Amino acid sequence: MSDCKKRFLLSEDDIPRKWYNIQAEMPNKPMPPLNPRTRQPLKAEDLFPIFAKELCKQELNDKDVWIDIPDEVREMYKYYRSTPLVRAYALEKALDTPAHIYFKNESVSPMGSHKLNSAIPQAYYCKKEGVKNVTTETGAGQWGASLSYAAKMFGLEAAVYQVKISYEQKPYRKSIMQTFGAQVTPSPSMSTRAGKNIITRTPNHQGSLGTAISEAIELATTTPDCKYTLGSVLNHVSLHQTIIGLEAEKQMEMTGEYPDIVIACFGGGSNFGGIAFPFMRHNFSGSRKTRFIAAEPASCPKLTRGKFQYDFGDEAGYTPLLPMFTLGHNFCPANIHAGGLRYHGAGVIVSQLLKDGFMEAVDISQLESFDAGILFARTEGIIPAPESCHAIAATIREANKCKETGEEKVILFNLSGHGLIDMGSYDKYFAGDLRNYELTDDDIAKNLEDIKDL
Amino acid sequence: MSDCKKRFLLSEDDIPRKWYNIQAEMPNKPMPPLNPRTRQPLKAEDLFPIFAKELCKQELNDKDVWIDIPDEVREMYKYYRSTPLVRAYALEKALDTPAHIYFKNESVSPMGSHKLNSAIPQAYYCKKEGVKNVTTETGAGQWGASLSYAAKMFGLEAAVYQVKISYEQKPYRKSIMQTFGAQVTPSPSMSTRAGKNIITRTPNHQGSLGTAISEAIELATTTPDCKYTLGSVLNHVSLHQTIIGLEAEKQMEMTGEYPDIVIACFGGGSNFGGIAFPFMRHNFSGSRKTRFIAAEPASCPKLTRGKFQYDFGDEAGYTPLLPMFTLGHNFCPANIHAGGLRYHGAGVIVSQLLKDGFMEAVDISQLESFDAGILFARTEGIIPAPESCHAIAATIREANKCKETGEEKVILFNLSGHGLIDMGSYDKYFAGDLRNYELTDDDIAKNLEDIKDL
Repeated sequence: MSDCKKRFLLSEDDIPRKWYNIQAEMPNKPMPPLNPRTRQPLKAEDLFPIFAKELCKQELNDKDVWIDIPDEVREMYKYYRSTPLVRAYALEKALDTPAHIYFKNESVSPMGSHKLNSAIPQAYYCKKEGVKNVTTETGAGQWGASLSYAAKMFGLEAAVYQVKISYEQKPYRKSIMQTFGAQVTPSPSMSTRAGKNIITRTPNHQGSLGTAISEAIELATTTPDCKYTLGSVLNHVSLHQTIIGLEAEKQMEMTGEYPDIVIACFGGGSNFGGIAFPFMRHNFSGSRKTRFIAAEPASCPKLTRGKFQYDFGDEAGYTPLLPMFTLGHNFCPANIHAGGLRYHGAGVIVSQLLKDGFMEAVDISQLESFDAGILFARTEGIIPAPESCHAIAATIREANKCKETGEEKVILFNLSGHGLIDMGSYDKYFAGDLRNYELTDDDIAKNLEDIKDL
Repeated sequence: MSDCKKRFLLSEDDIPRKWYNIQAEMPNKPMPPLNPRTRQPLKAEDLFPIFAKELCKQELNDKDVWIDIPDEVREMYKYYRSTPLVRAYALEKALDTPAHIYFKNESVSPMGSHKLNSAIPQAYYCKKEGVKNVTTETGAGQWGASLSYAAKMFGLEAAVYQVKISYEQKPYRKSIMQTFGAQVTPSPSMSTRAGKNIITRTPNHQGSLGTAISEAIELATTTPDCKYTLGSVLNHVSLHQTIIGLEAEKQMEMTGEYPDIVIACFGGGSNFGGIAFPFMRHNFSGSRKTRFIAAEPASCPKLTRGKFQYDFGDEAGYTPLLPMFTLGHNFCPANIHAGGLRYHGAGVIVSQLLKDGFMEAVDISQLESFDAGILFARTEGIIPAPESCHAIAATIREANKCKETGEEKVILFNLSGHGLIDMGSYDKYFAGDLRNYELTDDDIAKNLEDIKDL
């Protein structure tokens, strides 16, 4: 590998000026979100009380293939973009695989993950529309940290509901959010009706993204000059994240190769969509046959074992009904350390794409994910976030297949974040205190039964 | 600032191929290190039992201005270099200063600090010379983490003595070292004679870099196939760190500006030397008149209040006698959170340069350092390491002077690392639990009295 080029970076001029809106090019458009009372398709105006108006329009825009990145947002992207595309020579060598493994390193963002890519525009549009306060949910805290930072940069006050189990597992994330001036509350909390209901029903509830979303929406809709923001699942979040794949496409050109397989971990879908969608459009046009693999936790397997149907995006049922692969909005995932993947449903775009066979999904156990993460750390030198470990595990599976078949496939995965705030999880792994969680078919059927009439 | 270029990066081809050896160009060479028994100037061979031979030669090399970076080391540098040079527009705006503030962002290294720049060559030379095990000391753990990573990459076993107070303040750094397979022991420990002596004398000793160095040297010299490595102070460490300043020099050219002032925090001197020396050579030649400012903690003020004389580099007196600004090798600094700056002495090169007026030093209190770090986080979006906060505080002082005078000076500082593993310190700051430490002239005189006959 001596003198091989390892990292590929774009000049500031080459940072994309538009996001890619896959909705406009999908062969089958997603089914519409529904108003739960009327069961009528949602209009952008229906979302105005919750989100900044421009974000509501982006959410339902299935006409415009390219959407301008506002100058102010692009200026903020320059703080950390382009992120490097890296050839993982050392990992390839350790695996003794003929595969060429590349990763897009989103962990170099100042907040340590890709989440900032959407936090910046969401805060920007809120500011532009005169909003003073923003609320949100967060799991592991990658999104909450990014929103807190973005809010501070645009002069907004931020209130974050962090899933209780993650709040306790990763105390430094709370500290980061507080450093940026945000107010952080472990969820479920007694500060909202949704939180109180859950605590009354289940006093030791450890929280889930679905629960924290309910609390944040409730706070937003009951507070003046306040909007809610979301870290994944919704179309506009994936839209912003396409900056990842659009950069990666240019960077792959610099390598002279093109990915046969694109892999990302999967919570709500914005990280996956971010890297996958810009490459997938060439599959739509028939010019490429790339495989796309979403790696989800075995303990929260909505893509591999969930059902495609209308369901709520949150636990309390405050959101519209979304057509999604889901485990049921009451599903409370096991306490795995990949807090960002503990969500019951998949975004509507990804759900449609999976249904239509444009992508695949695999499930990864907690121990396999950490095994993969530690091999990656000891070869490439970056300690990955527990979420990203799932993408690495799926990559290793594919690289090992290449070793068996001798195929020199090009694999690209998204390193969504680093794990420096998650070292407590690694400590537990080394102490033998991490385990896998089995989920029976009955467990899954029970939660789906609850939502069968939605 | 719309569409102004914010980050400046070098192509892989432009990553330097040689380190800058300032010893060869200093108007007054440093006085030689002495064998403490014979008081004769040290020869490279005298150091062979402790360090890899090539490092011993680099340590005493005052002939060669440029020293080749081995290809294998340069390949490893490519994992994270060049690091960005960043124009801190948002900080400038917050300060309302006419100064142009740039920082070299070493925090993007996978270990989060500049320390990797020397860990890689030190591990490389050890490996090349057939060494199997390496030992070292670490304070906050930035160096220990970097050495652990570099050791793993070159297939060496690493044993790290971490200063006890930092081991307790920053538990995740231990976890990072362990993730890379290193053995980590809080120092002082009962595993060495030096450690036992200290614990016997002072049972609740919180540790210091001087103590941890003694333990690591003792382990290295009593273990087969084992060498000691050091994270700062020595000439060869600063040599490796000049990669920072050499890159920054090329990057400043890209901005069309040249620094009037270069600032870095100061523990042993390698971070300061790393960014300063490549610019300082133009002062030697008379072609530039840049000011160089080392920012040290007010509670460990060897540059501003210490004495220039021969002293040991460690607490137990295992090292050669070094001509340095020192507070006395028995000096145990207050428990500030900038663990990497808790060292009693300054490297010999920097000591000579300070004596000769080529640089200045300022002392910064703990609270001023955190005030500065939080302003930086809330403007530039990067939470700085407590050590780096000292450089930021010194930068803000200079930027405020520019505001008073209206001068448009160009200030460059080194952001030596991020503070994501130091969030416990920020928590304490926000809780009002951090304080300053006063050091009386008598405190300082007492320690210096102990070493007056060295």
